[in-house]
Amino acid sequence: MLSNHFENGMDMARLAWSRLPHSEDGELDGVGLLSTSSNRNGVESLDYEVIENYAYREEQAQRGKFFVGYNVAVKWFFALLIGIGTGLAAVFINISVENFAGWKFALTFNIIQKSYLAGFLMYILINLALVFSSVYIITHFAPAAAGSGIPEIKGYLNGIDIPGILLFRTLIGKIFGSIGSVGGGLALGKEGPLVHTGACIASLLGQGGSTKYHLSSRWLQFFKSDRDRRDLVTCGCAAGVAAAFRAPVGGVLFALEEVTSWWRSQLMWRVFFTSAVVAVVVRVAMGWCKSGNCGHFGGGGFIIWDISDGQEDYSFEELLPMAVIGIIGGLLGALFNQLTIYVTRWRRNYLHKKGNRVKIYEACLISVLTSVISFGLPLLRNCSPCPDSDPGSEIECPRAPGVDGNYVNFYCGKDKEYNDLATIFFNTQDDAIRNLFSAKTIHEFSAKSLLTFLVMFYTLAVVTFGTAVPAGQFVPGIMIGSTYGRLVGIFTVNHYKKLNIDEGTYALLGAASFLGGSMRMTVSLCVIMVEITNNLKLLPLIMLVLLISKAVGDVFNEGLYDEQTRLRGIPLLESRPKYVMRKMTAREACGNQKVLSLPRVVKVADAVSILRSNKHNGFPVVDHTRDGEPLVIGLMLRSHLLVLLQSKIGFQHSPLPSHSRSGSGAIRHNFSEFAKPVSSKGISIDDIYLSSEDLEMYIDLAPFLNPSPYVVPEDMSLTKVYNLFRQLGLRHIFVVPRASRVIGVITRKDLLIEEESEDSATMELQSTSVRGQRHKTRLLEENGADAERPLLNGLLVQNQR
Amino acid sequence: MLSNHFENGMDMARLAWSRLPHSEDGELDGVGLLSTSSNRNGVESLDYEVIENYAYREEQAQRGKFFVGYNVAVKWFFALLIGIGTGLAAVFINISVENFAGWKFALTFNIIQKSYLAGFLMYILINLALVFSSVYIITHFAPAAAGSGIPEIKGYLNGIDIPGILLFRTLIGKIFGSIGSVGGGLALGKEGPLVHTGACIASLLGQGGSTKYHLSSRWLQFFKSDRDRRDLVTCGCAAGVAAAFRAPVGGVLFALEEVTSWWRSQLMWRVFFTSAVVAVVVRVAMGWCKSGNCGHFGGGGFIIWDISDGQEDYSFEELLPMAVIGIIGGLLGALFNQLTIYVTRWRRNYLHKKGNRVKIYEACLISVLTSVISFGLPLLRNCSPCPDSDPGSEIECPRAPGVDGNYVNFYCGKDKEYNDLATIFFNTQDDAIRNLFSAKTIHEFSAKSLLTFLVMFYTLAVVTFGTAVPAGQFVPGIMIGSTYGRLVGIFTVNHYKKLNIDEGTYALLGAASFLGGSMRMTVSLCVIMVEITNNLKLLPLIMLVLLISKAVGDVFNEGLYDEQTRLRGIPLLESRPKYVMRKMTAREACGNQKVLSLPRVVKVADAVSILRSNKHNGFPVVDHTRDGEPLVIGLMLRSHLLVLLQSKIGFQHSPLPSHSRSGSGAIRHNFSEFAKPVSSKGISIDDIYLSSEDLEMYIDLAPFLNPSPYVVPEDMSLTKVYNLFRQLGLRHIFVVPRASRVIGVITRKDLLIEEESEDSATMELQSTSVRGQRHKTRLLEENGADAERPLLNGLLVQNQR
Repeated sequence: MLSNHFENGMDMARLAWSRLPHSEDGELDGVGLLSTSSNRNGVESLDYEVIENYAYREEQAQRGKFFVGYNVAVKWFFALLIGIGTGLAAVFINISVENFAGWKFALTFNIIQKSYLAGFLMYILINLALVFSSVYIITHFAPAAAGSGIPEIKGYLNGIDIPGILLFRTLIGKIFGSIGSVGGGLALGKEGPLVHTGACIASLLGQGGSTKYHLSSRWLQFFKSDRDRRDLVTCGCAAGVAAAFRAPVGGVLFALEEVTSWWRSQLMWRVFFTSAVVAVVVRVAMGWCKSGNCGHFGGGGFIIWDISDGQEDYSFEELLPMAVIGIIGGLLGALFNQLTIYVTRWRRNYLHKKGNRVKIYEACLISVLTSVISFGLPLLRNCSPCPDSDPGSEIECPRAPGVDGNYVNFYCGKDKEYNDLATIFFNTQDDAIRNLFSAKTIHEFSAKSLLTFLVMFYTLAVVTFGTAVPAGQFVPGIMIGSTYGRLVGIFTVNHYKKLNIDEGTYALLGAASFLGGSMRMTVSLCVIMVEITNNLKLLPLIMLVLLISKAVGDVFNEGLYDEQTRLRGIPLLESRPKYVMRKMTAREACGNQKVLSLPRVVKVADAVSILRSNKHNGFPVVDHTRDGEPLVIGLMLRSHLLVLLQSKIGFQHSPLPSHSRSGSGAIRHNFSEFAKPVSSKGISIDDIYLSSEDLEMYIDLAPFLNPSPYVVPEDMSLTKVYNLFRQLGLRHIFVVPRASRVIGVITRKDLLIEEESEDSATMELQSTSVRGQRHKTRLLEENGADAERPLLNGLLVQNQR
Repeated sequence: MLSNHFENGMDMARLAWSRLPHSEDGELDGVGLLSTSSNRNGVESLDYEVIENYAYREEQAQRGKFFVGYNVAVKWFFALLIGIGTGLAAVFINISVENFAGWKFALTFNIIQKSYLAGFLMYILINLALVFSSVYIITHFAPAAAGSGIPEIKGYLNGIDIPGILLFRTLIGKIFGSIGSVGGGLALGKEGPLVHTGACIASLLGQGGSTKYHLSSRWLQFFKSDRDRRDLVTCGCAAGVAAAFRAPVGGVLFALEEVTSWWRSQLMWRVFFTSAVVAVVVRVAMGWCKSGNCGHFGGGGFIIWDISDGQEDYSFEELLPMAVIGIIGGLLGALFNQLTIYVTRWRRNYLHKKGNRVKIYEACLISVLTSVISFGLPLLRNCSPCPDSDPGSEIECPRAPGVDGNYVNFYCGKDKEYNDLATIFFNTQDDAIRNLFSAKTIHEFSAKSLLTFLVMFYTLAVVTFGTAVPAGQFVPGIMIGSTYGRLVGIFTVNHYKKLNIDEGTYALLGAASFLGGSMRMTVSLCVIMVEITNNLKLLPLIMLVLLISKAVGDVFNEGLYDEQTRLRGIPLLESRPKYVMRKMTAREACGNQKVLSLPRVVKVADAVSILRSNKHNGFPVVDHTRDGEPLVIGLMLRSHLLVLLQSKIGFQHSPLPSHSRSGSGAIRHNFSEFAKPVSSKGISIDDIYLSSEDLEMYIDLAPFLNPSPYVVPEDMSLTKVYNLFRQLGLRHIFVVPRASRVIGVITRKDLLIEEESEDSATMELQSTSVRGQRHKTRLLEENGADAERPLLNGLLVQNQR
């Protein structure tokens, strides 16, 4: 009985904090990290704990309502900035890629007028140069920018920090690496990297720049809280998807379904706003480009495959070929995931161990291979005669090479011929997809060409996956899917002999099915497909296909991102506990590890030796009542203890809780000292120099600890512990003995506290009382009588807003 | 130290349950209810606790993977059923409303060819008859079906059950009441009621029918778990919105943003599927109706206000009038909320206290008033000459009365004239909105007519809100908003003198702004507006307007649903804790209420007197070690204790934990006994007859209790307690003294248990071991030596899947 302890004369310090409002570390601990030495596969555990101390909180309380408004306004302003930044980055990447690719194709076509061989070589060389630039940037400058980045961001939002993923250099590497790898014609896309780009921009904006961590102290304080940082990165992800596909709703749903681990509905509106800003920025930029300011860019680059001309109605018999598309998508998608697992493992275990040089060779080799296949295969293919065009139709055949559109003349002898394989293979991917999706071009592509393309491109996509360049899987997935979709479409047209069946629509369904079978996204993918094709009416069909392909894929393995997350050793906490946890108790989960606890007043030398002896991130603090009974008084974080040791301000000579010293110590510590910059490692115990005199001193931890971490009884089922940990986003839970009595039972009615009437009154009262209290505090300080008001009381106040 | 207790010879019973896996009541408790007598404003606390006992769990374990698949399949099948059911209900309501309204207008127009007065009277009478039928159904048959039902469903999904909201009679009342009130021309819509209808259908399907609670025991068990029921109702809500607006994505987002309190991303795909099924059902039904099978229905009724003809581009100067629309929307929306609060309070405190008769009079009076205004005002309005139509345009002017479309000839003298007020006022609301949204009809409506309509309809909407009929606020909101939107559009056209400004687009923005200002929905509203107008390009504009109107509205009051939820006394737990909680501790929240705890073996007479003495829904069970130290061993639910008392199976003569009896008692109790039907009240202590002999007996509670409810230390900040309670959806939290020591600290790494390798092995192992154990259990039972394996171990196993 705590009150009895006090009555029995336990030191009043504890009374102070038990009466005062306590710190709330609930969601705040959200992005906590692996707390011990379990650094698996190079995943490092950074420390994200955020401090907003007593002084900070007073400041806030005084600001009152104006501050709340200011706070909200700043958050929205940052959402705007993230939207604009991501939009501009997307525009820049797109314009660059389109220009490089356009220039490449124009040059090649010019040369092949004279010599196909010279054109071939030039094509290979340009691609090689672009891919080399990309892989060089990644290997030598920004290794964290390789791949799509989505698994890493997912991990970050789940509470794990992989070093370097949100650095400025990663952002730069991602942008320029994408331009090189996509412009260089590899079988990968720029969409995944754009998500990572958006997240980087958000994180960098949140911390106010890259090298200079203090752009403005006023701004910075908003994003010192871990939850705010997480929110920003979530906005950035949605912005990335919105920019990649020009799909604002899809972006929000992608962030919600695929990336985040914790979602608050308050955040949704802000995320949506960010996405919409991106859409506006991209739209404005495209309008500006239309007037010819962007070189080869024109209308292309941004994915909008408008198939509003596609079929609107569908008959019952068509559901069968559509189901077949779904099944193929599930099978090929699951196979893709499985193959990429093998390829990634092999790369990790053999190839990439040999250093950067091998990575560069590998990427260059794949580039040459891709160039040879995409140029060479269309050469081997015979040209087809142009279809008899209606006088009214706008279809032009053959088109001059180097111009966007269907029916490309490539290595064709006669005048009225086109090369269907070149139309999809020897082209930028966006144009190829546009051609595959195109409606009213029945029988443009022969089954043989499509099958050739499918096999070759699928192989290339598998091989390319995991090279050291920024790489998205959306566009390759759409390419693969639309190819077999169109194949099924051809068979359907031939079989049912109906006029209203459109091969382009089947290509779209194929794309959806492959993405569903590989990534296993559902709602967000559905909405993205609807938004990029600008055709709401296809929604039920897309959904049907996705349902089937996801179900088929789930039989074999997990989604691409999940598999990759696991391969990279990112220890995600899933939303559902594992089955085995049902048979375990909290105590069993802790194992036999001895708990290292700190006394309330700790000798510096002891603290140092405890910190050196292990890598734990948090330590229980145990005090004794005057009766000698032990009592757990809170949780001390390693990072906070390190700050205390480094600053030496709280040091005292006496081993007793010294009232005046610790109180002033708390005041003297600025809250920002406890907050760590996002992208550096924080201090280590080895960085701190302590003289032998210092080592003989003591620190009173009471003002700095978290007085009430969440606890569970030792024999609680681990499933329940897991739910507590995961849902509340905690970093530490104390396992304690079963209680001896129940002081009260809290039910819904106890939590229905009406604030209504007291709202404004409380506000007033509180701000004045705090001011009064503060005044008193100063007086007490001067008298050396103030004490024990814990620094952490004000912690995380921000987060409750 | 618990293990010490055991070593010290504490009875082995407790050891049994501390070793066995424990029950997980985490999310399961989700829809727990007000646990005490705090029945405010007639909100009753039903008990939703769900039991899946030991026997049930064994059954499940044996079924293994097949069962999991079956489980998933059944859930999807129910999603399909909900989609079909809600879709059909929506089609039925729409066809009925359209037919009643069409017949009404046709008849009236026929009569006014001869006499306007006779037509006027006929119009009033038909409306009166329809409204009377609606209000009669509601007052005499299904009182819970009044209003939109959204606040109630929101409460249900937050964990509060308002009696009757999910009954079969409510469903029937809602459907037929909607037809009467909407067909009768009142200023209300059928969209909110459709959400309620969807929820009712979902809930009824989940419990397998209305009166017969056991359609099939196999099916039923899936939806015994509270979480499954909640999921079904969530699906139903989304289906309702999808059916009302033919907006599947909007439906999902509405359920996510506005209605649910707990959201799992696994649920999202299922909810989306339900919405898509609705879309398909509605589409098929509409296709069938197009061939003339549905009377007056035709294409109308279902909201699709296609304004793809609207303006596509917008200049920078137009942002000003659009911002003005947003501000007007915020102001008028907030005013609407405020006025409805007064009206609702007045109704509740004065009018509706006088009984059903007054409610009927009231509705009839409002019906007559509405009829008089909507018929009379257009009569007073002078007709306008038809615009000079281009030869190519399809606009017909004047149209014959009784036909859908613009430019209605109503009480016009000359030939080439139309009555603009009649076009919007004397019409079904859907047609009126279509006319207001219509593009390329510049200056069809005069500012004077629009202003008249705005004032009159706004007043009618406020007055109608809260009458005892099913009533949605979407359509009235759209009407009001599009009116002033079009007004602003007129001024903009006049001021900027540009040709590409379209009044219809401004009407759409106005509609969005009013809904945003009143309901304060954001993403879902945005998506719904985009989906109903079928124009993705307006998204940024809609969002801009919504941002402004929501921000303006938030200055004044809360959203319509939140206000109404509070007025109805539905004690929602918000997702964020109240500010005052920061200054309170868990102990303070409990107040000075004495905790009533039960001993492990309780005398029946004592149990009865405890149950009679209070209304608590859960009791701590406290046992003593052999050393005499007390120990909290779990939580006993009132409902479970009542079941035990009623069945009398566990009764024993000895006051000691008797091993054989309770063990067999646990076995003899079927898990379904502990589950309560959704829509009845469960047993009360007064329903149980116990003889004086019974009262002298004892019950051993150990097998029936929840062995490890969540606990918090007494001085934890209430904010943290709130987060725990709310995020995990709990019903009871024990407040216990601060622990004396920490046995272990659980961090992320402790929860990263790999199931991968052991997965299949464990499955195998577990199913055999369970079977083995079961065999042993039987043997032990026979020997009378088995004991204490708690019945609740298997509880909620379902929910972990």
